[in-house]
Formats: sequence, C-alpha cells, structure tokens
Amino acid sequence: MTATAVRTDVYAQVQHFYAHQMQALDGGRFADYAATFTEDGTFQHSPSAAPAVGRAGIVAELVEFNKRFDGDPVQRRHWFNHIALEPQADGSLRSTVYALVVTVRPGGKPEIAPSCVVHDVLVVTDEGVRTRSRLVTHDQLA
Amino acid sequence: MTATAVRTDVYAQVQHFYAHQMQALDGGRFADYAATFTEDGTFQHSPSAAPAVGRAGIVAELVEFNKRFDGDPVQRRHWFNHIALEPQADGSLRSTVYALVVTVRPGGKPEIAPSCVVHDVLVVTDEGVRTRSRLVTHDQLA
Amino acid sequence: MTATAVRTDVYAQVQHFYAHQMQALDGGRFADYAATFTEDGTFQHSPSAAPAVGRAGIVAELVEFNKRFDGDPVQRRHWFNHIALEPQADGSLRSTVYALVVTVRPGGKPEIAPSCVVHDVLVVTDEGVRTRSRLVTHDQLA
Repeated sequence: MTATAVRTDVYAQVQHFYAHQMQALDGGRFADYAATFTEDGTFQHSPSAAPAVGRAGIVAELVEFNKRFDGDPVQRRHWFNHIALEPQADGSLRSTVYALVVTVRPGGKPEIAPSCVVHDVLVVTDEGVRTRSRLVTHDQLA
Repeated sequence: MTATAVRTDVYAQVQHFYAHQMQALDGGRFADYAATFTEDGTFQHSPSAAPAVGRAGIVAELVEFNKRFDGDPVQRRHWFNHIALEPQADGSLRSTVYALVVTVRPGGKPEIAPSCVVHDVLVVTDEGVRTRSRLVTHDQLA
Repeated sequence: MTATAVRTDVYAQVQHFYAHQMQALDGGRFADYAATFTEDGTFQHSPSAAPAVGRAGIVAELVEFNKRFDGDPVQRRHWFNHIALEPQADGSLRSTVYALVVTVRPGGKPEIAPSCVVHDVLVVTDEGVRTRSRLVTHDQLA
C-alpha cells in the first residue's frame, strides 16, 4: 500500500485532471486531449497498437481511430475508477486506473464495453498534471 | 484545461457533497436531497421538462416523478464520474459530470441506463456546497 | 448532510485507500487486501454469510470464495462510487459506498452485476486508513 506516499492534494489534482482530460476526449476535442500529455508524451490505446508519440501524433492517431464513427451519431464516454498512484524515483507518478467505455446512440441504451485498465505515467508541473505515457490494456484480451 | 484553477480541497468537498446528495436521492430522502440545493435552486431532470424551482418545488417534482415506481420494489442508484469544475466570474462553479442510472429489482440484474450528463452550478458557502441549478441531458436524446 | 464534518484531505485519503485496496482484491493479492483491514477487522461479503474475522480469516475466506473461479480465466473488477463518510463518536468513520462488480472473460463483454452497497467502518491511523469492518449488501436481495 503506497496510498500514504502521495499527498492528498496531488491525489485530488489527478482526479480533476482526468475529469477534464477524458471529457475533452469524449467531446471530440482532440487537440485539448493531446495538450494534456507532455510534449513528448506517448499514447498506446492497446498493447498491439504502435504508440502515438507527441501531441501532433496523438491528434493524428485519434483522427484516424475515429474515422470508424464517421456518419455514426455515437456518443462515447470513458469512465474511470480506482485511481491508484505510486510515486516513482524520478518524481513521476505511476497511475493505474480502471476504465469502462460507455457507448450510446440516439434512441438506444448504453452499451458498456470494453473493460480496460489505463496505465499512465503522470508528471506534476507548475502548470498542472500531464500524462507522459499511457498504455491501455483490455480485460477481454487477457 | 481549468483543473488547476480550482483548489484541491474544494474539489474533494464537491465530490463528497455529491456522494451524500445522490445517496439521499436514491434513498428516497427527497427533503434531504432538496436541502442540498440553494433556497432558490432549480432542478431540471431533462431539457424538455420544466425546471422545479425552490426546495418545496423540487420535493414536489420528485414525489410526482416517483409515482411511476409505486408498488414497484425498485432500487435506483445514480452513479457519477469525471466531475469537471470550472470557476465562474461570480464565484460559483460550473460542474459537468457523467451519470449513469443503475436500476435493480429483487432477484434481477442491474440495468444500467440512461447515460446522462449533469450540468450543475454549485456555490460553496460556509455551510458547505449547494447546487444552485441542475440540468440533466440524456445521451440517447442527442 | 455531514460532508462538511470530514476533512477534505481525509476524504481524498479514503478514496486513494479504496483504489489500492480494491485493485489488490481484483488482482488476487489477498494478503495485501487483508492487510488493509485492522488486525481484528471483519469482512462480511453478504448479510447471510458469517463474517471473516482477522487478516488470516479474511484471506481464508477469499481463497474459499474464489475456488469457484478455479480454471476460469475470469477478471473481476469492483467499481466504487459515491463514498459518503460520517464521523463516529469514537473517531472512526462510517463509510457507505455504491459498488458494481464487472466480470470479463477472454473474448467476452463485461457483465456488470451485482449492484451492492459497501458498509464500512474505517479508522485513520498514522499508517493510513484501515477497514475495521465491512458488510456488503446486495440490491437484488432487498
């Protein structure tokens, strides 16, 4: 248990960071989402995918990924739970978070899948929290 | 990203406020729920509904809404995620929150629908957080 | 509303405690999970079950319970929401939390059931938060 090794204000800051970060993603504001990463941040949405590198690379990856929803009036929402932080020797934070994707179409009911785990490395700077790297694993592929 | 513009203790306070507020609603303690609003608070559970105004008005609205469950041993639970706060010029906080409604009946499995977004304006007073206005939008109506 | 009676740093500490505690449980690290209880802690996973007492007792209970998953490549994840704390006269905290169990098997979609409420008594020590007692109620049994 390393919960006590992280300051409670940093914990709240990370929670709030994720709220804005994921609302940006789900709102299709890809540049805002990419700006939540460090300049050289990496984003790997599944272990088999090549990581997108840098903010421009992350935006390009999201544009490409979301082409599958062209003309599809879908609303996706990424839910997070149990943000567990562990301080690293270099001052960064390892963050392990449960995630579920909620998908809704007009007139339909939410589909809740897949169940994932988000593996982040976060850095806390004067400007706030930034994601240095993100790898998403999928429970159904385990 | 405005996450850094909100104090972390206020963020934790809002989270805890929502926990008590929504457990009051799901527990059928409508007066307790209404008391989490400001005296002149408004509550609009969908964009097409007229807003309930004031604590008595909110209780009346909830009593009316819940008549559909008379004699139905249903347990509903409102889940919240990704509380994103933005400070307003007047000192209030705009709060945008994901919501899912979990519905369970005896012997049954939970149904999880609809997926919503809660749009609140919150005020933080010496007595704690209060909701000044709440509008709930529904993803399947988008 | 007793939200204001709990310090915001304690609230964040409890949230983070639960994140590590439940990731230990879902990761099959039963000794780590048991270590999040006080020495004499009790764990009752449904009202009809006898409570497991003490850390060794909790580990034994979990080993027994999880025999049903022997040879079953299942991943279970316990989601928590709306952690509502109430200070008790003895300095402990009563904690009432919504819970959903997410179950995934290889190639499958998550099943999300049952919907529960976790009723904890927590103590905050210099070493961090510990669960003194846990009773889980199930909505479908109400």
